[in-house]
Amino acid sequence: MSLLTVGTVAFDSIETPFGKVDKVIGGAATYICWAASYFCKQQHLVSVIGDDWPDREIVALNKRGVDTRGLQIIPGEKSFFWAGKYHTDLNQRDTLVTDLNVLADFDPVLPEAYQDTEYLMLGNLTPEIQMTVIRQMERRPKLIAMDTMNFWMDVAMDGLLQTIRMVDVLTINDEEARQLSGEYSLVKAAKKIFTLGPKYLVIKKGEHGALLFHQDEVFFAPALPLLEVKDPTGAGDTFAGGFMGYIAKTDDSSFENLKRALIYGSAMASFCVEEFSLDRLRTITDVQLQIRLNQFKNLVHYNL
Amino acid sequence: MSLLTVGTVAFDSIETPFGKVDKVIGGAATYICWAASYFCKQQHLVSVIGDDWPDREIVALNKRGVDTRGLQIIPGEKSFFWAGKYHTDLNQRDTLVTDLNVLADFDPVLPEAYQDTEYLMLGNLTPEIQMTVIRQMERRPKLIAMDTMNFWMDVAMDGLLQTIRMVDVLTINDEEARQLSGEYSLVKAAKKIFTLGPKYLVIKKGEHGALLFHQDEVFFAPALPLLEVKDPTGAGDTFAGGFMGYIAKTDDSSFENLKRALIYGSAMASFCVEEFSLDRLRTITDVQLQIRLNQFKNLVHYNL
Repeated sequence: MSLLTVGTVAFDSIETPFGKVDKVIGGAATYICWAASYFCKQQHLVSVIGDDWPDREIVALNKRGVDTRGLQIIPGEKSFFWAGKYHTDLNQRDTLVTDLNVLADFDPVLPEAYQDTEYLMLGNLTPEIQMTVIRQMERRPKLIAMDTMNFWMDVAMDGLLQTIRMVDVLTINDEEARQLSGEYSLVKAAKKIFTLGPKYLVIKKGEHGALLFHQDEVFFAPALPLLEVKDPTGAGDTFAGGFMGYIAKTDDSSFENLKRALIYGSAMASFCVEEFSLDRLRTITDVQLQIRLNQFKNLVHYNL
Repeated sequence: MSLLTVGTVAFDSIETPFGKVDKVIGGAATYICWAASYFCKQQHLVSVIGDDWPDREIVALNKRGVDTRGLQIIPGEKSFFWAGKYHTDLNQRDTLVTDLNVLADFDPVLPEAYQDTEYLMLGNLTPEIQMTVIRQMERRPKLIAMDTMNFWMDVAMDGLLQTIRMVDVLTINDEEARQLSGEYSLVKAAKKIFTLGPKYLVIKKGEHGALLFHQDEVFFAPALPLLEVKDPTGAGDTFAGGFMGYIAKTDDSSFENLKRALIYGSAMASFCVEEFSLDRLRTITDVQLQIRLNQFKNLVHYNL
């Protein structure tokens, strides 16, 4: 089945305790599409870039099965740029620069060929843009997942709630789940968020794993303890890409299958953080993925 | 098999976003013994209290199978007292008061009947006191576990390293593992800590679960997302008590059994946080424990 992703395509400058890179390939949609490409062979991308974006990166996406007809290229303008520095505790980071550039006036237009895509992943963007994309779909996708962040809860809560009402899966972190629901207990937070619309809530906890809530059920995917962690940038988006890519591939939105998807997403994220930018995501082999999936299984397996 | 615990027995005053209690029963050894008592029916306690400690609490421990002949009672003196306040994020707390009282001059003396106990749990205390206890054992226990904290890394690193060299299992949190090893990656931290003596490393991550490292293997026990969390005080000690109580009961120090013990410890900790002080730990039934263990199993179970 096909997967449509809307989200940022960006340049990043990143400093972590383990190194520093300048103006490398980044952006939520980029990570999502690369991660999903290991599962879903028919992807559509909606985003915007300036003409400073390297052609070879577009070609690389096309080769991974990503249709980029919905990727607007604005002549004479610059691509979105983000610079950040991570603390020794990689869970904390400071944003140094956010240059919206082409993103400031981004008005997504879905090519006709995109409009009956079966699965939709809304990367973190203004809730209005996310909603615009849903409204342009000719047929409602089988599953719509939406990523968002605390910033939109602070400055655009009304629009955010309107958009959340239209989606099936909401992916946020634990702090954001608490802020959105006003509940400290994540179990209570999930119950409240279900009243806002979504049937599934994915709580991303970075190096502490991810939780999937559905009705009265909960599932947990751990993060694999890694020998090398160089750069957490894009890990959440990579997770979302693996998650939605696996669901699109299997064409199954049951809780049981979303549990598996959570593991696939976690496995992809565990690769992502091993190198800066997309470097590790470009070279994963089937065997490496299989080994990693086994490691995830062994990590939590016991007999009582 | 028998389990010997050395650690604090204290009064706590605790404020969390969900309530406030004054001068309630606390202390690492208290939590450890209560949690372990659900598995191990032959326990020995070494600690110190003032004559302000309620007799009924000693009787209650005795009824749970805890031999308190090694619990020194200092006439005219006060028991150790700790007061703390938790942030909205329950992972953060401020210590408001630490009155060592009887603990200031604590010199543990092992009754003869304790000296051939098979399993030893060293609760968080000065490394010197922990070492004194090990040295008083006539026969080396089958397994020695030791809890400690960053404070001793800051002020007593030499004594701490000497004590760590004598134990089999070290239990610390993720930050402490990073501080002790100088490594950010927990996989690398574990490898370094193994060179200091222990064969097993347990990394406690509170509401994010616990990791067990052994040689090149790693196992993860999640924390159960709970409807109600009132007070995290003692959760780490309760975890350690369930962990060591289960090992003592089964008399099996293999990695496979320690994995199970980690789940039992996590299950006990999940009860602990549901009420203030020891309240929930006093009333767990077999059926409730079984249901909780099933919840832990379902939380991470999937078929690929």
